[in-house]
Amino acid sequence: MNSTWGRKYRLSVFGESHGKGVGVVIDGLPAGFAVDFDAVSAELSRRAPGRDETSTPRRESDRFEVFSGIMDGKTTGAPLMAMTRNADTRSGDYTPGIPRPGHADLVAMLKYRNFNDFRGGGHFSGRLTAAIVFAGAIAKQILASRHGVAIISRAASIHGETDPERQRAAVLEARARGDSVGGVIECIVTGVPVGWGEPIFHSAESELAAMMFSIPAVKGVEFGDGFGFADKYGSEVSDGLGIDANGNVMHLANHNGGINGGITNGETVVFRVAVKPTPTISIPQKTVNLNTNEAIVHSFSGRHDPCIVPRALPVVECAAAIALMECGG
Amino acid sequence: MNSTWGRKYRLSVFGESHGKGVGVVIDGLPAGFAVDFDAVSAELSRRAPGRDETSTPRRESDRFEVFSGIMDGKTTGAPLMAMTRNADTRSGDYTPGIPRPGHADLVAMLKYRNFNDFRGGGHFSGRLTAAIVFAGAIAKQILASRHGVAIISRAASIHGETDPERQRAAVLEARARGDSVGGVIECIVTGVPVGWGEPIFHSAESELAAMMFSIPAVKGVEFGDGFGFADKYGSEVSDGLGIDANGNVMHLANHNGGINGGITNGETVVFRVAVKPTPTISIPQKTVNLNTNEAIVHSFSGRHDPCIVPRALPVVECAAAIALMECGG
Amino acid sequence: MNSTWGRKYRLSVFGESHGKGVGVVIDGLPAGFAVDFDAVSAELSRRAPGRDETSTPRRESDRFEVFSGIMDGKTTGAPLMAMTRNADTRSGDYTPGIPRPGHADLVAMLKYRNFNDFRGGGHFSGRLTAAIVFAGAIAKQILASRHGVAIISRAASIHGETDPERQRAAVLEARARGDSVGGVIECIVTGVPVGWGEPIFHSAESELAAMMFSIPAVKGVEFGDGFGFADKYGSEVSDGLGIDANGNVMHLANHNGGINGGITNGETVVFRVAVKPTPTISIPQKTVNLNTNEAIVHSFSGRHDPCIVPRALPVVECAAAIALMECGG
Amino acid sequence: MNSTWGRKYRLSVFGESHGKGVGVVIDGLPAGFAVDFDAVSAELSRRAPGRDETSTPRRESDRFEVFSGIMDGKTTGAPLMAMTRNADTRSGDYTPGIPRPGHADLVAMLKYRNFNDFRGGGHFSGRLTAAIVFAGAIAKQILASRHGVAIISRAASIHGETDPERQRAAVLEARARGDSVGGVIECIVTGVPVGWGEPIFHSAESELAAMMFSIPAVKGVEFGDGFGFADKYGSEVSDGLGIDANGNVMHLANHNGGINGGITNGETVVFRVAVKPTPTISIPQKTVNLNTNEAIVHSFSGRHDPCIVPRALPVVECAAAIALMECGG
Repeated sequence: MNSTWGRKYRLSVFGESHGKGVGVVIDGLPAGFAVDFDAVSAELSRRAPGRDETSTPRRESDRFEVFSGIMDGKTTGAPLMAMTRNADTRSGDYTPGIPRPGHADLVAMLKYRNFNDFRGGGHFSGRLTAAIVFAGAIAKQILASRHGVAIISRAASIHGETDPERQRAAVLEARARGDSVGGVIECIVTGVPVGWGEPIFHSAESELAAMMFSIPAVKGVEFGDGFGFADKYGSEVSDGLGIDANGNVMHLANHNGGINGGITNGETVVFRVAVKPTPTISIPQKTVNLNTNEAIVHSFSGRHDPCIVPRALPVVECAAAIALMECGG
Repeated sequence: MNSTWGRKYRLSVFGESHGKGVGVVIDGLPAGFAVDFDAVSAELSRRAPGRDETSTPRRESDRFEVFSGIMDGKTTGAPLMAMTRNADTRSGDYTPGIPRPGHADLVAMLKYRNFNDFRGGGHFSGRLTAAIVFAGAIAKQILASRHGVAIISRAASIHGETDPERQRAAVLEARARGDSVGGVIECIVTGVPVGWGEPIFHSAESELAAMMFSIPAVKGVEFGDGFGFADKYGSEVSDGLGIDANGNVMHLANHNGGINGGITNGETVVFRVAVKPTPTISIPQKTVNLNTNEAIVHSFSGRHDPCIVPRALPVVECAAAIALMECGG
Repeated sequence: MNSTWGRKYRLSVFGESHGKGVGVVIDGLPAGFAVDFDAVSAELSRRAPGRDETSTPRRESDRFEVFSGIMDGKTTGAPLMAMTRNADTRSGDYTPGIPRPGHADLVAMLKYRNFNDFRGGGHFSGRLTAAIVFAGAIAKQILASRHGVAIISRAASIHGETDPERQRAAVLEARARGDSVGGVIECIVTGVPVGWGEPIFHSAESELAAMMFSIPAVKGVEFGDGFGFADKYGSEVSDGLGIDANGNVMHLANHNGGINGGITNGETVVFRVAVKPTPTISIPQKTVNLNTNEAIVHSFSGRHDPCIVPRALPVVECAAAIALMECGG
Repeated sequence: MNSTWGRKYRLSVFGESHGKGVGVVIDGLPAGFAVDFDAVSAELSRRAPGRDETSTPRRESDRFEVFSGIMDGKTTGAPLMAMTRNADTRSGDYTPGIPRPGHADLVAMLKYRNFNDFRGGGHFSGRLTAAIVFAGAIAKQILASRHGVAIISRAASIHGETDPERQRAAVLEARARGDSVGGVIECIVTGVPVGWGEPIFHSAESELAAMMFSIPAVKGVEFGDGFGFADKYGSEVSDGLGIDANGNVMHLANHNGGINGGITNGETVVFRVAVKPTPTISIPQKTVNLNTNEAIVHSFSGRHDPCIVPRALPVVECAAAIALMECGG
């Protein structure tokens, strides 16, 4: 397995859904940065389950203990390890030998020859995104402090609905039926300096996309007009250039989402990610019992989100912050 | 700059559009593999310009000289360097100081403080994809030989058209008007064993997406149902499991495009990339003359493709092969 | 800072001498390996201080808690995080503002602008080698189990003495005077298969040396005859080849310490490391008081080893195991 | 194989002794640096064979063609590829099937299952150090220009002799008898700023040693007093601190060779490398004929240096420059 990432802002995440907990080592931090741990906790709270009726009732503390790398509230430059211990784990919710369709259960068993921790998905669980949020929340602060970068996101659509009230209704309706719904998250990054990212392999788009596809349930990523470009003429989507009042070059449009040739151009970075409906639903699904090698129809009764878009918003933002640290942060 | 890639199948690409040429060092090759260089040339020919009236009339030889790493037609295990020298370069086509909207011209100048080779985009040029095709064509052969992996692609749409004849007409129509069109490429990979890719950071989707976004003009990537998931119920897109005639577990659907939890599940890997219309068009665009700091309207007259989808097909396939070498090839 | 290592057996170490503790994430473990944690503890005990009168009286528990990556005593394939909490820390032993000559105190302050954790050396402390021993002890087991590799070491000399009794006497004599002594550790690795390591950059010697120089106080590394080669004729140090009783090629000598051209040749790998005398001694040394910017003469009274060679033996062995995992393990 | 190196100043070397030539891609160069290619050639000439009677009579042009990354004499920021074509290759000098003792011939055959290019050692040849010199000569210039770093080296001893005239005599004497001699190179680096290198894994000593052990024939590396520390008391080798005339902290001695805790301390960096006698000698050696599987006694008649110390001096310096780019250059 390879749960390490980054050349500059290096992460090593660890832990399991139903083990002792999850955590992360962040290596490559500057020394002397005053981390706002309340702000980190606020990001973790946005991700935490059990906040309202649209999310899973599992309650996780998501309170991270900082073990190293901080003295007097400031980074020392040494690796920062932080971890959270699991509190509310009901392993009984998971039936070993009955893989959940659309989940990693089956591939994990095959790849790791049944030695993987299957309880709640183990290291494959969405619970690991708490570690990404922790590391990304600090990255966000560094980016804001050093460069004035701000990262926000919103549910562009849930089950096709763009209005927040209708989105909520769609989630509750799905929940009531034991079903789930997908959606699209739009992420907006302002203040990114010109010149972040590299042509070819380490383009800003490559770095951001690699991090987005590290988030469970993300199945698509597009920048600027994205797939909308496919039906357009070049003349319709030209990000023409002009001179602003101060005599500086400015873009007259932003179809490219702030990135040209893999490198940020000073405009707002805009991208969207497609989030699939949670595959764990209580509506019966066709699956197999690997203990008996029989095809069965099974209703998965664990506590799960009918739509992970709301909880995924901070994950997308924090993952974007991690990617941007790599690009130039 | 960082034009190196890979932990297992390591690439270092170099060269410029209007310099001496382009090339690549491939490090990490197995020893004793008989490379079919005719097949490599065939891939390069698919990418080469000037083949018909839908592509740029620039003629590149795209004939690569193999400099090292091969003896008696077989890999020695040592790094394979191959390069092609530029033949038909008309630098006069490019006007320094007038950045092409939608291209890397402006960001390259700012990032590299005007020291970058601006001629034809220099190292940012689509010409560099020849190096990716060379390296990926060998990767394709290794994947096919070792694992039976086959990678094909098609123009799923060009300017909204799905029929090849209408696609061609759309390109010619755009060309006639000095305009360009975008499209969507679908890539299909069969034979990928179960278990390639890692959960979290090095997911098969992360690896493939990072390579796809290394291709100029790619602005979106989706796997399986991709953005189509966003409007669906979980119950509609369940990749149910069953038992096949041989008693093996099988998937009853493939909405996830052959990847679960970041790891290949043995089904066909399916993804699509959005390709934007070529930004260099002869229809006048708003830009700036950096020599005079004036806003101008300029018609870019260089030889360019009205649609790069056809030539991008082998690039997408070969880039996918490179990504799959990293995942498990 | 960069406290991560490895492309295959990836480590991320964290912690401080006088903070909460130290630990390590090991990423890249095979799944299903039954770790012998008693053997790991035994290695840690060999390194632990306070065992006898030749070492520092500081008592560390060095009992590691395994937090993730293990289920039912076997590796799951997911990252293994383990940590130990500091017990006996007397920060008062350390005087901030008075750098210990020969230590990292001064450079750490300058590099990290006084934000580093100075207590007991913080992340620069020899205490961090406990994390290396933990990770290396598991590597040792994997190497033994998979390949039959065995790694042992001995104090080749301490203050010039080769006899163990005289070595002990030399340490006690130095201790009595508040002084310290250096030595040479010889490490012997049997069972390494032919072909580990790479020519040029990732030679077996490069990998082993990089790990050895990660151990505080190591100031020299040599393989086989090492510096002894310098005075010899080529004809004197020829590792001639012959045919053994089974018809296999054999080496008739091992001046090269089991490595040719950066690659293991099947013979015993032999290397030696030079260990400097502990720089913290109670004999007064010239140093500076940075609070007053005055030159002073200071006696450092902390609890320190008069000779770290005995405790460094398991560190050298475990560090060697980590390096060998990278080479081919 | 893995002939790539570096996280910041990334190298990918390629080529073979008796193939088309050797070369290197340097990735990570700053833009706008005016490379002094005459100085690069001068370094290459120092390494080139055939200069006088103490070196091999093989004449290599060692004239590198710069293929990319340079425009108007300055770096563009894009990868710089440079290569030299082999001129004087007499493959007949090498007898396939008769491995040279002490060389990589046997391990290369075994590791690459006879697919390796055996001619003159192929990719394992000392000829590859020309690529290291090319890349390192540019690194040297960058270090000098940016930081005032100067790197020099000398033959501290050859066959035990420290006097240059006696060293020369020793080499000629060995040559006359068809034998070879080893020696020690001392490298002195002035001007290195405080704070380069990292504690633990990426110590300045680790980076430098890894590069030194990438040079064929290097079998030992020591910093400062190195192995000399082993016989000393701590009180004898204390690098005491004081205050200089300007009120700055200064070191009163430099036993540690400019590095404490893995990090440069502002003093001169001093290290020595042990160079073994060239294993290819015309004095008959015991070896095997792998074609017949017989033990034989063979005289290797190729053109070889009786002592590579003189030609290795620029290699050591340039390799040091590469390592220092990684540490902080």
